Amino acid sequence: MAIKTLKSILNQQFSYTINGKLWIECMGERFFGPGPVELLENINTTGSINKAAKEMNMSYKKAWAIINALNTNVAKPLVVMKSGGEKGGGSVITKEARQLITYHKKLRKRFIYFLEKETKKLNHLS
Amino acid sequence: MAIKTLKSILNQQFSYTINGKLWIECMGERFFGPGPVELLENINTTGSINKAAKEMNMSYKKAWAIINALNTNVAKPLVVMKSGGEKGGGSVITKEARQLITYHKKLRKRFIYFLEKETKKLNHLS
Repeated sequence: MAIKTLKSILNQQFSYTINGKLWIECMGERFFGPGPVELLENINTTGSINKAAKEMNMSYKKAWAIINALNTNVAKPLVVMKSGGEKGGGSVITKEARQLITYHKKLRKRFIYFLEKETKKLNHLS
Repeated sequence: MAIKTLKSILNQQFSYTINGKLWIECMGERFFGPGPVELLENINTTGSINKAAKEMNMSYKKAWAIINALNTNVAKPLVVMKSGGEKGGGSVITKEARQLITYHKKLRKRFIYFLEKETKKLNHLS
Protein backbone atom coordinates (compact mmCIF):
# COMPACT_ATOMS: atom_id res chain seq x y z
CA MET A 1 0.00 0.00 0.00
CA ALA A 2 1.05 3.59 -0.50
CA ILE A 3 1.38 4.83 3.07
CA LYS A 4 -0.10 8.20 2.07
CA THR A 5 -3.49 6.52 1.99
CA LEU A 6 -3.69 6.90 5.78
CA LYS A 7 -4.98 10.37 4.94
CA SER A 8 -8.34 8.86 4.06
CA ILE A 9 -8.44 6.75 7.24
CA LEU A 10 -7.72 9.22 10.03
CA ASN A 11 -10.23 11.87 10.95
CA GLN A 12 -8.74 15.25 10.07
CA GLN A 13 -10.71 16.88 12.91
CA PHE A 14 -8.86 14.77 15.51
CA SER A 15 -5.26 14.77 16.69
CA TYR A 16 -3.28 11.52 16.74
CA THR A 17 -0.20 10.72 18.82
CA ILE A 18 2.17 7.78 19.09
CA ASN A 19 2.75 7.05 22.76
CA GLY A 20 4.36 4.26 24.77
CA LYS A 21 6.24 2.96 27.78
CA LEU A 22 9.84 1.88 28.13
CA TRP A 23 11.72 -0.07 30.79
CA ILE A 24 14.88 -2.10 31.40
CA GLU A 25 14.58 -5.85 32.02
CA CYS A 26 17.05 -8.06 33.84
CA MET A 27 16.79 -11.75 32.92
CA GLY A 28 13.45 -11.01 31.24
CA GLU A 29 11.90 -9.26 34.26
CA ARG A 30 11.14 -5.53 34.32
CA PHE A 31 13.38 -3.93 36.94
CA PHE A 32 14.14 -0.30 36.04
CA GLY A 33 11.97 2.50 34.74
CA PRO A 34 10.35 5.81 35.76
CA GLY A 35 9.01 4.41 39.08
CA PRO A 36 12.37 3.30 40.54
CA VAL A 37 13.97 6.51 39.22
CA GLU A 38 11.40 8.59 41.12
CA LEU A 39 12.01 6.55 44.30
CA LEU A 40 15.80 6.91 44.03
CA GLU A 41 15.50 10.65 43.37
CA ASN A 42 13.21 11.04 46.38
CA ILE A 43 15.68 9.13 48.60
CA ASN A 44 18.38 11.47 47.30
CA THR A 45 16.30 14.53 48.20
CA THR A 46 14.95 13.40 51.56
CA GLY A 47 17.85 11.21 52.74
CA SER A 48 15.31 8.62 53.93
CA ILE A 49 13.55 5.63 52.38
CA ASN A 50 10.57 6.26 54.65
CA LYS A 51 10.14 9.90 53.61
CA ALA A 52 10.79 9.05 49.96
CA ALA A 53 8.07 6.39 50.04
CA LYS A 54 5.61 8.76 51.74
CA GLU A 55 6.11 11.37 49.00
CA MET A 56 4.95 8.77 46.49
CA ASN A 57 2.10 7.46 48.67
CA MET A 58 3.99 4.18 48.77
CA SER A 59 4.35 1.91 51.80
CA TYR A 60 7.79 1.60 53.40
CA LYS A 61 7.52 -2.14 52.76
CA LYS A 62 6.95 -1.66 49.04
CA ALA A 63 9.79 0.87 48.80
CA TRP A 64 12.11 -1.65 50.47
CA ALA A 65 10.97 -4.40 48.09
CA ILE A 66 11.77 -2.17 45.09
CA ILE A 67 15.19 -1.26 46.51
CA ASN A 68 15.97 -4.90 47.25
CA ALA A 69 15.00 -5.86 43.69
CA LEU A 70 17.17 -3.04 42.30
CA ASN A 71 20.16 -4.03 44.43
CA THR A 72 19.75 -7.71 43.44
CA ASN A 73 19.75 -6.92 39.71
CA VAL A 74 22.92 -4.86 39.58
CA ALA A 75 26.55 -5.46 40.55
CA LYS A 76 26.74 -2.79 43.27
CA PRO A 77 24.01 -1.50 45.61
CA LEU A 78 22.08 1.57 44.48
CA VAL A 79 20.92 2.54 47.98
CA VAL A 80 22.97 2.24 51.17
CA MET A 81 22.27 3.13 54.79
CA LYS A 82 24.43 5.66 56.50
CA SER A 83 25.93 4.69 59.88
CA GLY A 84 23.20 3.98 62.41
CA GLY A 85 20.87 2.59 59.74
CA GLU A 86 17.64 4.12 58.45
CA LYS A 87 16.50 5.35 61.89
CA GLY A 88 19.97 6.58 62.85
CA GLY A 89 21.68 8.08 59.85
CA GLY A 90 19.21 7.78 56.99
CA SER A 91 19.84 6.37 53.50
CA VAL A 92 21.73 7.64 50.49
CA ILE A 93 21.87 6.68 46.84
CA THR A 94 25.24 5.60 45.49
CA LYS A 95 27.35 6.92 42.63
CA GLU A 96 26.13 3.86 40.66
CA ALA A 97 22.48 4.91 41.20
CA ARG A 98 23.30 8.38 39.84
CA GLN A 99 24.98 6.87 36.80
CA LEU A 100 22.02 4.58 36.12
CA ILE A 101 19.61 7.54 36.47
CA THR A 102 21.73 9.59 34.03
CA TYR A 103 21.76 6.71 31.54
CA HIS A 104 17.99 6.30 31.96
CA LYS A 105 17.34 10.02 31.32
CA LYS A 106 19.32 9.82 28.07
CA LEU A 107 17.49 6.63 27.06
CA ARG A 108 14.14 8.32 27.73
CA LYS A 109 15.17 11.33 25.63
CA ARG A 110 15.91 9.01 22.71
CA PHE A 111 12.54 7.26 23.23
CA ILE A 112 10.66 10.59 23.34
CA TYR A 113 12.47 11.63 20.16
CA PHE A 114 11.32 8.34 18.56
CA LEU A 115 7.70 8.98 19.65
CA GLU A 116 7.76 12.58 18.39
CA LYS A 117 9.27 11.54 15.07
CA GLU A 118 6.61 8.84 14.61
CA THR A 119 3.83 11.24 15.63
CA LYS A 120 5.05 13.80 13.07
CA LYS A 121 5.29 11.08 10.43
CA LEU A 122 1.75 9.89 11.17
CA ASN A 123 0.29 13.40 11.04
CA HIS A 124 2.25 14.24 7.93
CA LEU A 125 1.01 11.07 6.26
CA SER A 126 -2.55 11.51 7.38
CA MET B 1 29.42 10.92 33.30
CA ALA B 2 31.30 8.69 30.91
CA ILE B 3 28.58 6.27 29.82
CA LYS B 4 31.10 3.38 29.80
CA THR B 5 30.90 3.39 33.60
CA LEU B 6 27.67 1.35 33.33
CA LYS B 7 30.06 -1.61 33.05
CA SER B 8 30.68 -1.41 36.77
CA ILE B 9 26.96 -1.14 37.58
CA LEU B 10 25.38 -4.01 35.68
CA ASN B 11 25.98 -7.59 36.74
CA GLN B 12 27.98 -9.28 33.99
CA GLN B 13 26.37 -12.63 34.89
CA PHE B 14 22.91 -11.30 33.95
CA SER B 15 21.36 -10.31 30.64
CA TYR B 16 19.70 -6.92 30.26
CA THR B 17 17.08 -5.90 27.70
CA ILE B 18 15.28 -2.68 26.82
CA ASN B 19 11.59 -3.45 26.38
CA GLY B 20 8.41 -1.42 26.01
CA LYS B 21 4.90 -0.90 24.70
CA LEU B 22 3.63 1.30 21.91
CA TRP B 23 0.17 2.48 20.90
CA ILE B 24 -1.67 5.17 18.91
CA GLU B 25 -3.74 7.76 20.75
CA CYS B 26 -6.63 9.78 19.39
CA MET B 27 -7.27 13.02 21.28
CA GLY B 28 -5.01 11.77 24.07
CA GLU B 29 -6.78 8.42 24.50
CA ARG B 30 -5.21 5.09 23.58
CA PHE B 31 -7.19 3.61 20.68
CA PHE B 32 -4.99 1.41 18.50
CA GLY B 33 -2.34 -1.18 19.31
CA PRO B 34 -1.67 -4.94 19.26
CA GLY B 35 -5.07 -5.81 20.85
CA PRO B 36 -7.29 -4.16 18.22
CA VAL B 37 -4.99 -5.48 15.47
CA GLU B 38 -5.49 -9.04 16.77
CA LEU B 39 -9.27 -8.53 16.90
CA LEU B 40 -9.38 -7.12 13.35
CA GLU B 41 -7.21 -9.96 12.04
CA ASN B 42 -9.45 -12.53 13.75
CA ILE B 43 -12.55 -10.94 12.21
CA ASN B 44 -10.79 -11.10 8.85
CA THR B 45 -10.04 -14.82 9.32
CA THR B 46 -13.35 -15.93 10.82
CA GLY B 47 -15.73 -13.49 9.08
CA SER B 48 -17.52 -13.00 12.40
CA ILE B 49 -17.14 -10.65 15.38
CA ASN B 50 -18.51 -13.38 17.66
CA LYS B 51 -16.00 -16.02 16.51
CA ALA B 52 -13.16 -13.49 16.55
CA ALA B 53 -13.97 -12.53 20.15
CA LYS B 54 -14.16 -16.19 21.20
CA GLU B 55 -10.68 -16.87 19.82
CA MET B 56 -9.34 -14.19 22.14
CA ASN B 57 -11.47 -15.26 25.14
CA MET B 58 -13.20 -11.89 24.84
CA SER B 59 -16.91 -11.26 25.29
CA TYR B 60 -18.94 -10.25 22.24
CA LYS B 61 -19.89 -7.11 24.16
CA LYS B 62 -16.27 -6.11 24.69
CA ALA B 63 -15.38 -6.84 21.07
CA TRP B 64 -18.23 -4.59 19.97
CA ALA B 65 -17.09 -1.84 22.35
CA ILE B 66 -13.58 -1.99 20.84
CA ILE B 67 -14.94 -1.92 17.29
CA ASN B 68 -17.22 1.00 18.12
CA ALA B 69 -14.29 2.90 19.63
CA LEU B 70 -12.17 2.15 16.55
CA ASN B 71 -14.89 3.27 14.17
CA THR B 72 -15.46 6.47 16.20
CA ASN B 73 -11.78 7.45 16.09
CA VAL B 74 -11.25 7.18 12.35
CA ALA B 75 -12.84 8.74 9.29
CA LYS B 76 -14.21 5.52 7.77
CA PRO B 77 -15.40 2.33 9.52
CA LEU B 78 -12.87 -0.46 10.00
CA VAL B 79 -15.47 -3.22 10.39
CA VAL B 80 -18.73 -3.50 8.49
CA MET B 81 -21.52 -6.05 8.50
CA LYS B 82 -22.32 -7.95 5.37
CA SER B 83 -25.96 -8.01 4.24
CA GLY B 84 -28.17 -9.66 6.83
CA GLY B 85 -26.05 -8.39 9.72
CA GLU B 86 -23.80 -10.37 12.03
CA LYS B 87 -26.29 -13.29 12.32
CA GLY B 88 -27.05 -13.26 8.62
CA GLY B 89 -23.96 -12.46 6.62
CA GLY B 90 -21.17 -11.98 9.12
CA SER B 91 -18.69 -9.10 9.35
CA VAL B 92 -15.71 -8.05 7.31
CA ILE B 93 -12.86 -5.63 7.83
CA THR B 94 -12.55 -2.77 5.35
CA LYS B 95 -9.71 -1.70 3.08
CA GLU B 96 -9.01 1.08 5.62
CA ALA B 97 -8.59 -1.52 8.40
CA ARG B 98 -6.04 -3.37 6.26
CA GLN B 99 -4.16 -0.14 5.59
CA LEU B 100 -4.07 0.74 9.29
CA ILE B 101 -2.85 -2.78 10.15
CA THR B 102 -0.10 -2.48 7.52
CA TYR B 103 0.95 0.92 8.89
CA HIS B 104 0.91 -0.51 12.44
CA LYS B 105 3.11 -3.46 11.45
CA LYS B 106 5.68 -1.10 9.96
CA LEU B 107 5.52 1.15 13.03
CA ARG B 108 6.10 -1.89 15.29
CA LYS B 109 9.08 -2.96 13.19
CA ARG B 110 10.63 0.47 13.71
CA PHE B 111 9.91 0.25 17.45
CA ILE B 112 11.45 -3.24 17.70
CA TYR B 113 14.48 -1.94 15.82
CA PHE B 114 14.74 0.91 18.37
CA LEU B 115 14.50 -1.58 21.28
CA GLU B 116 17.12 -3.90 19.76
CA LYS B 117 19.46 -0.99 19.05
CA GLU B 118 19.14 0.26 22.65
CA THR B 119 19.60 -3.26 24.05
CA LYS B 120 22.79 -3.69 22.00
CA LYS B 121 24.01 -0.28 23.12
CA LEU B 122 23.33 -1.11 26.78
CA ASN B 123 25.12 -4.46 26.57
CA HIS B 124 27.99 -2.97 24.63
CA LEU B 125 28.35 -0.23 27.22
CA SER B 126 28.00 -2.51 30.17
